[in-house]
Formats: sequence, C-alpha cells, structure tokens
Amino acid sequence: MAARKRKPAQALTHLAGKPVAASRSELAEIVLPAETNPLGNLLGGRVMHLVDIVAAMAAHRHSNSYVATVSVDYLDFRNPVRAGEIINLKAQVNRAFRTSMEVGVDVFSESVLTGQRRHTTTAYLTYVAIDEHTGQPRLVPPLICKTPQEKRRYREALKRREIRLRHRSRGSQD
Amino acid sequence: MAARKRKPAQALTHLAGKPVAASRSELAEIVLPAETNPLGNLLGGRVMHLVDIVAAMAAHRHSNSYVATVSVDYLDFRNPVRAGEIINLKAQVNRAFRTSMEVGVDVFSESVLTGQRRHTTTAYLTYVAIDEHTGQPRLVPPLICKTPQEKRRYREALKRREIRLRHRSRGSQD
Amino acid sequence: MAARKRKPAQALTHLAGKPVAASRSELAEIVLPAETNPLGNLLGGRVMHLVDIVAAMAAHRHSNSYVATVSVDYLDFRNPVRAGEIINLKAQVNRAFRTSMEVGVDVFSESVLTGQRRHTTTAYLTYVAIDEHTGQPRLVPPLICKTPQEKRRYREALKRREIRLRHRSRGSQD
Amino acid sequence: MAARKRKPAQALTHLAGKPVAASRSELAEIVLPAETNPLGNLLGGRVMHLVDIVAAMAAHRHSNSYVATVSVDYLDFRNPVRAGEIINLKAQVNRAFRTSMEVGVDVFSESVLTGQRRHTTTAYLTYVAIDEHTGQPRLVPPLICKTPQEKRRYREALKRREIRLRHRSRGSQD
Amino acid sequence: MAARKRKPAQALTHLAGKPVAASRSELAEIVLPAETNPLGNLLGGRVMHLVDIVAAMAAHRHSNSYVATVSVDYLDFRNPVRAGEIINLKAQVNRAFRTSMEVGVDVFSESVLTGQRRHTTTAYLTYVAIDEHTGQPRLVPPLICKTPQEKRRYREALKRREIRLRHRSRGSQD
Amino acid sequence: MAARKRKPAQALTHLAGKPVAASRSELAEIVLPAETNPLGNLLGGRVMHLVDIVAAMAAHRHSNSYVATVSVDYLDFRNPVRAGEIINLKAQVNRAFRTSMEVGVDVFSESVLTGQRRHTTTAYLTYVAIDEHTGQPRLVPPLICKTPQEKRRYREALKRREIRLRHRSRGSQD
Repeated sequence: MAARKRKPAQALTHLAGKPVAASRSELAEIVLPAETNPLGNLLGGRVMHLVDIVAAMAAHRHSNSYVATVSVDYLDFRNPVRAGEIINLKAQVNRAFRTSMEVGVDVFSESVLTGQRRHTTTAYLTYVAIDEHTGQPRLVPPLICKTPQEKRRYREALKRREIRLRHRSRGSQD
Repeated sequence: MAARKRKPAQALTHLAGKPVAASRSELAEIVLPAETNPLGNLLGGRVMHLVDIVAAMAAHRHSNSYVATVSVDYLDFRNPVRAGEIINLKAQVNRAFRTSMEVGVDVFSESVLTGQRRHTTTAYLTYVAIDEHTGQPRLVPPLICKTPQEKRRYREALKRREIRLRHRSRGSQD
Repeated sequence: MAARKRKPAQALTHLAGKPVAASRSELAEIVLPAETNPLGNLLGGRVMHLVDIVAAMAAHRHSNSYVATVSVDYLDFRNPVRAGEIINLKAQVNRAFRTSMEVGVDVFSESVLTGQRRHTTTAYLTYVAIDEHTGQPRLVPPLICKTPQEKRRYREALKRREIRLRHRSRGSQD
Repeated sequence: MAARKRKPAQALTHLAGKPVAASRSELAEIVLPAETNPLGNLLGGRVMHLVDIVAAMAAHRHSNSYVATVSVDYLDFRNPVRAGEIINLKAQVNRAFRTSMEVGVDVFSESVLTGQRRHTTTAYLTYVAIDEHTGQPRLVPPLICKTPQEKRRYREALKRREIRLRHRSRGSQD
Repeated sequence: MAARKRKPAQALTHLAGKPVAASRSELAEIVLPAETNPLGNLLGGRVMHLVDIVAAMAAHRHSNSYVATVSVDYLDFRNPVRAGEIINLKAQVNRAFRTSMEVGVDVFSESVLTGQRRHTTTAYLTYVAIDEHTGQPRLVPPLICKTPQEKRRYREALKRREIRLRHRSRGSQD
Repeated sequence: MAARKRKPAQALTHLAGKPVAASRSELAEIVLPAETNPLGNLLGGRVMHLVDIVAAMAAHRHSNSYVATVSVDYLDFRNPVRAGEIINLKAQVNRAFRTSMEVGVDVFSESVLTGQRRHTTTAYLTYVAIDEHTGQPRLVPPLICKTPQEKRRYREALKRREIRLRHRSRGSQD
C-alpha cells in the first residue's frame, strides 16, 4: 500500500478497519426546471455538485472526520437528465490510503412516468480527512473488502491513483 | 378498502400490484451553515421541504405518474439537526387507495465525526397521482405487502386516513 | 392553563402580557417557475417552508427570543398555488404556554391578473422560546386576547395541545 | 398628469379607479447567515432584490397585469440589517400614469430579541404594466388617494418623475 | 476633494495611489429560467443583486478591505435580459474619497445564438471601506486616473456625489 | 484535424473561422459563507459548478448555439478557496472539432484584504453544439489561433482528446 512507504505500518493499526458497506451513501432528487438549461437538461455543473455531495458523505462515513475534495477523475455525461426525472447517485469508498480515500459514484436518471433507469456517468473522487482541531490531514481507517466486486474496485483504485500522481505536477494552462 | 366504496373493484384490476420495495426512496444531505438558524440548527421548514421531496419520490415510483401533495399529518421535531451533520430521510408507500397513496417518512441525523444517528421525526403524507395529459387524478396500482412490518403499516394507514377525512372539513382559522 | 401544573403561577408574573396584535406577521412572495413542479404548481414542501418562516416570525415577535419549531399539526392543500401567482401567509400567536406558543397560519394564493384570492391551507405550529445564552427553553409572556375571534382561537389551541401531547409518545414508523 | 399629454383623457376612463389600499403589500423575512457578508450584514444587493419583489407585488395588485421594472431611484442604506433580524418591507402605489406606476417602499429591520425597529431605506421604483398576450404596455387604472399622506405622495411622485425623465437620456458610462 | 475638508492631506499620503485598472471587475452569468418572471425576463431585483456583487468586487480590489454598500444611484432598465442569454457586468472604481468610493457598472445582455450585445443599464454605487477588526470606516488609497475616459468619470463622480449629499437628508416616505 | 476523417473538408467551409479571443469568458464571485463547508472552504462541487458555467459561456460564444457538457477531464484542488475571498475563473476555447469544442478553464482565488491571488485548479471540458430546432449536434466554426500560447493549447487539446476517446468505452463501476 502506497501509504506504508511514508509511515511505519504500526501507526495504521491504531484505527480499526471498516467495511465498504459502512461508507455506502445514496442521494436522490427530483430535477426541477430551475436547474436545467434552455434545452431542458440538468446542468452538467449541477450533476458535478451532487456527485461531490454524495461522495463527501461516503468519505465522512468511512473516516468519521471532516473531509476536503482533492481531485475528480475524468467523467463524461452519456445521457442527459431531464426536468421532472429523478436523479439518483450511489457512492462508496473504494480504497483508503493513509489520510485520503478514493470514492466511486454512479449516477442514474429515472423517469417518473415509466420507471426506466439510465446510467448517466461514473465518477471517481479523492478526499482527504481533515482534523477538526488542527485543520491538518489525519489518518483514516483501513478499508475491509468482502465481495469480489469490492476487491476488484480496491485493486483498480490503486491504478487510478498512480495516474493521478502523474497528473498532479500540472500547473496552470500557460 | 375505502376506494372500493366509490368505484367497482374490477376497475382496479387494470393495474398490476407493486411491492412496497418498488417505492422505497432515500435522500441524504450534508447540512450547510446556510440552512440553519442563529442557533446553528437546521430550519424546521427545510426539514419539511426535504420530507416532501423524498415522499414525492416514493409516490412517483409507486404510481409512475406526476403527483401532488394532498396533506401532511402531525409531525414533531424531537432532536435538532446541526450544521455539518448528515440528514438522512427514508420513505416508502404504506398504502395505496384509489388515486391516492399514504407515504411514511423517517428522518435521522447523523454526526460526521462520530457516526451516531438520532431519530428526528416521522411523517405521514398523502399524495394524489395526476394524469400528465388531463391534469386529473388517475388510478394507482394496488400495494403488495410482504413483511409483517409492511402489513402493520398498511393497516395503520387506514386508521390515519379516517382521522384525516374528519379533519378535512376544516375551513380557515376564522 | 397547562403550564401552571408544572410551575407556580408567580413565576409567570415576571413577564408582562402582550396582545395578539404584537405577534401578527405577514409574508408574501411572487411564485417563480423555479419553485414549481412539472405541473406548474408550487411544491408542497416549499409552502411548508414559508409556513415555518412566517410562524417563526410571529413566535419571535411574541417572545422576543430565539425560537425552535417543536411540531406542525395536520395540514392539507386544498388549492394549488401556480407559478406567477402571489402566495400570501398571515400568522399570529394563538396561545402562549409556559415556554412554548401555538401559532396559527392561513395561506392564500392570489392571481396577479384577476386579483382573485383562494384559501390554500391553515396550519398550526408549536414553537419553544430558546435563551440565546444557555440554549435552554425560557418563559414567554402571557397572551392578551381582546376580540371574540382571538378568544375562540385561544380556547381551541388548548384542545389541539391535548391532542398533540397524546401524539408525542409516537416513535419511528417501526 | 403627464400621461394626458400623449393620450386623450377619455381613453383612461375605461378603467375604474382603485384606492391606494388595494395595492398595499408587505413582505418580511428572517435574515439567514447565508445572505450576509463576512461582516454579518445582509448584502445590499439582497435588500434591493426584496425591494423589487414587494414593489412588483404592489404594481401587480394595482394593475392586475404582468409588470416589468423600469427604473429604481437613488437609495441609500442608513442602517445595516444583521443575520437573525427580521427585515420588513412595505410598499404601495404612489401614483399611476398611463401605463406605468410609481411604487414607494419603506424597509425596516427588527431585532427578534428586543423588538426594536430601525428604518433602513426608502425606495421609489417605476413599473410598466405588460399585456400577457401582446407583451406590450397596457393601461393601468387611475389611483384614488384618500388620506393627506396619500395625496402628498401623489404630488411628490410627479416631481420625481420629471427628474427621472431628465436622467433617462443617459447612455453607458463612456 | 471633499475628504480634505475634514482631514489634513498628509493623512492620505500613508496609502499609495492605485490605478483604475487595479479595481476593474467583470462578472457574467447564463440566465437560467429560474431567475425570470412569467414573461421570461430576468428579474429587475436579480440584476440589482449582480450589480452589487460586481461593484463590491471593484471596491474590494481598490481598498483591500471589507466594504459595505452605502447607496445606489438612479438606474433604469432599457432592455430586458432573457432566459438563455448571457448577462455581462463590468465595473471599476471611478473616484476614491476619504473612506468611500464611487463604482460605475455597465450591464449588457448577449444572445448566445447570435452573439449580439445590448446595453441594459448603467449604475453608480457608493461603498465605504470597513476595517475588519474595528468594524469602522477606514481610509482608501487615492485613485490614479490615466486615460481621458478615466479622468472624465473622475470629474463626473464628484458632481454625482454632491447630488447624493443633498438626497441623504431624506427620511422615510411619511 | 480529427474532424476531417469523418466528414469531407468542404462541409466545414460553410462556417467562417473565429479567433480564440471571441470565446474568452470570465466569471468572478465573492464567496459567501453559505457556500462553504464546516471548515470554511468553498465546496469542491460548487467550484465545479462555476467551472461548468464559465466554460459553457466560452462554448456558446464560439459556436453561437446551445451547448451540452460532454465530459470533464481530471482536475485537482490545490488551494482551498475561503469564505470572503473572490473566486475568479477564466475560460477560452482551445480547439474546435466538428461539432464539439475543448474549453480550458483556470481558477484563481483572491484575498480581498491583501489582493493576493492563488491558482486553485485548471480544468478541461468538452462541449457539443446543439441545434435549437432539432436538438441534434451541429457544426461549429474552425478556431483561429494567433499567439504561440494559443497554438500550443491547440496542439495539446488533440492529445487530450485521444486520451478521452480511450476512456469513453468505460461502463458503470461494476
């Protein structure tokens, strides 16, 4: 685990592991006309705002601490969400590092008239746990993966992290 | 069932029954300072707003139609929800009548620092299904109750409905 | 008066009585499309939010203190409020107890094109006065009723309170 | 009256006069921390937003039509409004012209802890009545002034209008 | 300069002058349907809210301090801004007095389909710089004008100030 | 140019090229306490919302059409934005494809007390131009790059696009 490189393993054993299920978070909203563009579609930025809220909730639940958004991976919008539809977001922690966590979010739209669901986007965000007194990063509990799906996401989260660390050196556009 | 008094039973058989699980809805939010009063507590009216959203979602999912809020039963706020906490709401249809549905909502607050959950309120709301073309009430599917809890809520919903029908004659305060 | 059962009467005499008129509060808004559902009607939860604001204002004015919403009685929505209409809410304290107050609210919609008014709902809410230093409930002034209407509302508020106290033992839905 | 210069008086007689009282409008809000600046004062732009809403309501009520804001006179903010206070706005039509109306608004803040009221600002706005079918200006009813105060405001509104007409030739800053 | 009458000139020399360019501020928004009236036009009060934000930004940048809105000059709305259009606001400090500044704002609407721009309004606002520790007014840097346009605005700001000082004696409407 | 592979070049010649400067867009806001988390930092999701608005504005200006967000590249938050600071966003089209555009956005925070600016994040978003009648994608004008910086961004946008096209095959998390 990447975190071990910087800190001896025993420091982590102070925190008991928590299962993925403890971080599972769900958020749903009825899309109001007020949040749509002139084409009647939910604004992309509003989707991103909800993605951040549900992901922060999962990070809160895993770490029992304040959290700050560190990064958001590439995401695309495959299907527009329309006014009057329900937007449904599901999140869970995929992997815990030393003081940070990767959270995965799936976004669906659901027609209230037919019940039909469509996948809108998948997003991966990284949060750091923040100590409420010092304002500094603090350790998060190890993640306990039980199902094959949870274990696969755990492995893939490490690969995504390596891609992120390469990106991080990037300055402004200029 | 109350609806049978007004309409022959066969009219209802056009719509296949749906299980309680199909209407189950959940909503969660991180309470921002912006939504609190000078004491740092989430505004009662904001809680009511979220109760209405999650309950409407359950009514949408059961009826696959537009819905309008008909009434809200007595509710009290036992524990305040504080800025920085997560407010979590869970709703399901308790009973379907001819064109209306009773939805039950439980509201919890959850500390992000300790994970502790407290029960804030229970609310019962009634929605009517609205046809999107005519704007008139339309039939809703019968509700299929499976667990003892679902069956108990189904029975109690009828008693609450009778209390509501007595209330309904009330005019303005004067 | 119910409050006397728990506290000797002389404790109340520290606060001079205030007339109903001192708590009278009014709120009006032009309903924007942003606050309506796909049918063009103001959201039920938004009405409840405005009801809480105008009622809290009446409770503030009677008690000259911070207040917290304790409960909301049964309410139904008889007439929808449409985008472009004015929603008008009027509130006053109906009865003061030891540290709590019942507030009555009438909600009307008003067409801007015809001036026609329709009664939407009547709501009864209970607030407790909160001391800004201790965060604990504090005494509120007795209410002085002058008109027959004020006296009738005062009597009826006691009956509603008894119904509420019976409700209050209710736990979560389960 | 200025309008007579452009249109023969008999055209106005189609609409029956309406008293000032018919346009009287009131709006109040509890100032939430969300609407204040880092100094804890309600944002000036938010006050202006509420001034426009209550004034539009008065113009709606006098004209029974859609309205559009034409201009806002000079206004200054004498006393800041603080988070937790009640902001209270009162408006009425001061004078009706051919298709436009001057509306006067007084803004007060009120401490919820002491009940003390302070005058924040007085604003004068002009609205034009808009036909909902054609989108063009339409005639408004003449205003009937009864009290000496109403008559004085009626006279002064004409003087303010003359000042406005001189301003109106102004282009952009350049 | 008016400020000199009250304070010896050397007190001002503590603060180095700043050019107009340092205060230049720009704000743009896509107008959402949520912010429009039933005619589809951006609310006048919303325009005023944006005017206050962009002008406060210019005042912040010139004074490097908290600021409070003191007054808003007469403004009229020549062209409505429609849902789906871009509203664009540009502001700069026109003149610095002892502790206050006049800010000029030009508002334009821009069609996203044609790119056509229209001038909506010009506004002049006055801000006072506030010390973040004492909450009292504090000195602002002198303004350095370079272009003929900046010099003309500087001269005209003084004339507008004299008109404002005459207005300021005005009480409430009554 | 990638677009040429799918469509003969002459189809593109219907639209005259537009310079990068024509799409340049800027947005700034004073961060209100209402938009911050319990740590006093602007919510990550709110930053993403503003990024989407300013980028959509640039895409509107280049294409003179409605636009929809297609994707958002990886972005990280290097420096938190605090309540009371100014958040400043600058965007321009980096490259136009057949019916889509890459937009680059730089986000800065600025202290109102010191004027100090810090770089918060750089974001790359892709928008598709949408015909307002058919709701289908429509051609966008070619982009004319003049400065070395514009030419470099143009080249790099193609590389980023190739990375995106590889990502796009990704399904939901499962």
